Amino acid sequence: MASKDDKLKARLPRGLADRTAADIRATERMVTSIRTVCERYGFEPLETPMIEYTDALGKFLPDQDRPNEGVFSFQDDDEQWLSLRYDLTAPLARHFAENYEQLAKPFRSYRAGWVFRNEKPGPGRFRQFMQFDADTVGTSSPAADAEMCMMAADTMEALGIPRGDYVIKVNSRKILDGVMQAIGVTDEGKKLTVLRAIDKLDRLGIDGVQQLLGAGREDESGDFTKGAELGPAEIESIVGTLVTSSKGDNKETIASLALRFGDAANGEEGVKELEALAELVAAAGYDESRIRIDPSVVRGLEYYTGAVFEAELLFEIPNEKGQKVIFGSVGGGGRYDGLVGRFRGEDTPATGFSIGVSRLQAALTALGKLDSSEKTGPVVVLVMDKEIERLGDYQRMVADLRDAGIAAEMYLGQSGMKAQMKYADRRRAPVAIIQGTVEKAEGVVQIKDLDLGKKLSEGLDDNAAWRQERPGQLEVPEKDLVAAVLKMVEARQ
Amino acid sequence: MASKDDKLKARLPRGLADRTAADIRATERMVTSIRTVCERYGFEPLETPMIEYTDALGKFLPDQDRPNEGVFSFQDDDEQWLSLRYDLTAPLARHFAENYEQLAKPFRSYRAGWVFRNEKPGPGRFRQFMQFDADTVGTSSPAADAEMCMMAADTMEALGIPRGDYVIKVNSRKILDGVMQAIGVTDEGKKLTVLRAIDKLDRLGIDGVQQLLGAGREDESGDFTKGAELGPAEIESIVGTLVTSSKGDNKETIASLALRFGDAANGEEGVKELEALAELVAAAGYDESRIRIDPSVVRGLEYYTGAVFEAELLFEIPNEKGQKVIFGSVGGGGRYDGLVGRFRGEDTPATGFSIGVSRLQAALTALGKLDSSEKTGPVVVLVMDKEIERLGDYQRMVADLRDAGIAAEMYLGQSGMKAQMKYADRRRAPVAIIQGTVEKAEGVVQIKDLDLGKKLSEGLDDNAAWRQERPGQLEVPEKDLVAAVLKMVEARQ
Repeated sequence: MASKDDKLKARLPRGLADRTAADIRATERMVTSIRTVCERYGFEPLETPMIEYTDALGKFLPDQDRPNEGVFSFQDDDEQWLSLRYDLTAPLARHFAENYEQLAKPFRSYRAGWVFRNEKPGPGRFRQFMQFDADTVGTSSPAADAEMCMMAADTMEALGIPRGDYVIKVNSRKILDGVMQAIGVTDEGKKLTVLRAIDKLDRLGIDGVQQLLGAGREDESGDFTKGAELGPAEIESIVGTLVTSSKGDNKETIASLALRFGDAANGEEGVKELEALAELVAAAGYDESRIRIDPSVVRGLEYYTGAVFEAELLFEIPNEKGQKVIFGSVGGGGRYDGLVGRFRGEDTPATGFSIGVSRLQAALTALGKLDSSEKTGPVVVLVMDKEIERLGDYQRMVADLRDAGIAAEMYLGQSGMKAQMKYADRRRAPVAIIQGTVEKAEGVVQIKDLDLGKKLSEGLDDNAAWRQERPGQLEVPEKDLVAAVLKMVEARQ
Repeated sequence: MASKDDKLKARLPRGLADRTAADIRATERMVTSIRTVCERYGFEPLETPMIEYTDALGKFLPDQDRPNEGVFSFQDDDEQWLSLRYDLTAPLARHFAENYEQLAKPFRSYRAGWVFRNEKPGPGRFRQFMQFDADTVGTSSPAADAEMCMMAADTMEALGIPRGDYVIKVNSRKILDGVMQAIGVTDEGKKLTVLRAIDKLDRLGIDGVQQLLGAGREDESGDFTKGAELGPAEIESIVGTLVTSSKGDNKETIASLALRFGDAANGEEGVKELEALAELVAAAGYDESRIRIDPSVVRGLEYYTGAVFEAELLFEIPNEKGQKVIFGSVGGGGRYDGLVGRFRGEDTPATGFSIGVSRLQAALTALGKLDSSEKTGPVVVLVMDKEIERLGDYQRMVADLRDAGIAAEMYLGQSGMKAQMKYADRRRAPVAIIQGTVEKAEGVVQIKDLDLGKKLSEGLDDNAAWRQERPGQLEVPEKDLVAAVLKMVEARQ
């Protein structure tokens, strides 16, 4: 036993959090909804462990200049490096490659799981957070990408987000490749600088992107970011591509994209794939208000090779400064044909979608679409007398209530009646059961309606009929306890 | 892209496993049952992260001579040591101490979660596995311990384990302390040796324990374990205590224990607590077939200070050698009054129960109490023609089926009809939908009953009436597709 002086400090490492009952239950309801949609699409659950060989995970962290940073790693006793997974895609690629022979292909699977990033945490930014992923591995068909977009749209609606308040934006890495090829940007380093500039469109606007494509940009703090040093015509060509989708008609967007590439083979392939995707989602009844081709979508991750998607919420919420801002991305994904290939020695087509569960939960809470109220607590049987025989009586009442399916507990602390009532209240108990010496002698119990007590004190007692039916306190014979509590608990629902 | 030569090996570190759909669903059903019992007892969910400060976890690994081994640890960027949690109790103690002021006390909570042990894995022994814990912190009442035992018993029954096939065994660390005090074993090292000897009762039997209490024991491989070097009378006193419960009557067991201590204060206190616990569970209707006082229960963990529990399954299953053996422990717990105190500088009474979810799942599977069969898969729409327009038709059928709540998918691979049928079969599709050029021209679709096909080929086709109602293949107008599939899918359930 530590003395008061050398006691340990009870604290969590930064960027990690405990989860309350209301939070756990809200997440569970959300994940159940998402899962139901995935199963309707023919996806099956698959889970991988939290720990993988570091080399199997690869270096595919988003927006990370030093990719080995950002991961929690440690050595096994045979000196091999292990890491906590930082996403659910790399482990899936490992699983598919490891079990290639046994799997029905194309392989459709989904999973909800914790991932870990060893990064500087911030508001709403944790070092352990939950993702929900669905992937189809083993097919290059644009129909697989189309399905990811439709599934994402269905998921948003299943979670209660109205049509019009979300959009699934689609692009292809090949489109941007085609544009760059057409204007002569072939150096890999310069390509990356261009992609990173485009990726900042949401945050910096067209002006900011133009600066980053040109000489560079100075931010509010005076820091200067060197640009891609493209000429005005080249910059116009890229910026023109980004705003192509502004009319919101997928066919028009694709047609005008097609004009931008000349002979760039990659761009042409990208256009064809987007064309097929657009036709398939249209055939299934998804219009541009739900799934929209948008050439400004980049997605940070290095490993995407074709279609990329982004699920955006369009409604506004107040930011930290009280300004109304569009909620923005809650997930995304794309085609990653090379990721499995690292294990198999040949490219294996694959596509997937990933939802940031915690971020989406914040959005749903802001929308009022997620019941995050606390649940009614258990019936609390007060302890009026600590004699072991009387405790046995109370314990029997609790057991009877539980047998009837009613959540119930006996007060287990040392405090008196007033503190016990306060405890019952903090537990959100619907009723408290009281049997003192007098009641015991008479063979009766008192049932106190705590919810009604609260409503009365809040001045909500003007409904006389309702009061009639739900008296604040009731005395019943011992044998009628369960029936009386059932009646009161049901009446309040 | 890696070439075939330098490709990565797709493999998991030892002691870690991927989880299949059937496994995930079975665990989920189990955890839901356990959770329902806990909520009926008034416990609320609480979850903590996988990562904690190493010092907050402490050194409380079971049966571990080098307690710092056995834990996955790594340094944070401020050089502080972090570890993956190895159980759910130490993090709960941290949470309670950290949030002391805000919590309603006694604090009842439960959680299911992954824990990690950096140990040598073996058959059924993993480095990541799931525990389910429930704890009451802030009460020294034996009623809290009694409740843990009743909740464990109710959990076993909720999982379908019949009364008589399980027992919750109860002891107190104070009983064993009292016995040791009475025979003059006061040295802490010697006490530990005695406890470890007793803990091996199940595996080595009375003879083995007697040897370990005396000079020592040579095992089958010739390894010698030094014993506690007690004299014959002392050994008899301990062994006599262990077999006290053989008659199985809690009152008798306690009475005969009380005779063994003389003036040993600790033992007397232990007897009083067990007495109260036994009275409370009896009052709530739990007899010795469910909750039994058994002085041979030790529990490996160092931090227990009072009552200790063990949930044992009594039915036999074949071991690796084909011998029938009693399944044994699937969980346990006890009172750990010092664990929270490390943070608070004063002892805080606490008691809890922990279930080894994976081990219990193995037991339930062996008992046939857990449906681990694979679920029916999605309806598969075959792709007879890869023209984009026809893909659109197929996609529309799939969308219609999904809208009607039927799990469905379009085949996304490149293979021909035979391979597609094989795929549908591997996906456990109830039916396959086929529309070739001819059917398209006629405006009809073929629905193939795959389950019936399988039954026919297995020779289960002798029920003529059943065949009548479920023809192997059906042609319907396009517009009747959903209704016809619904009918066939419902008929097979």
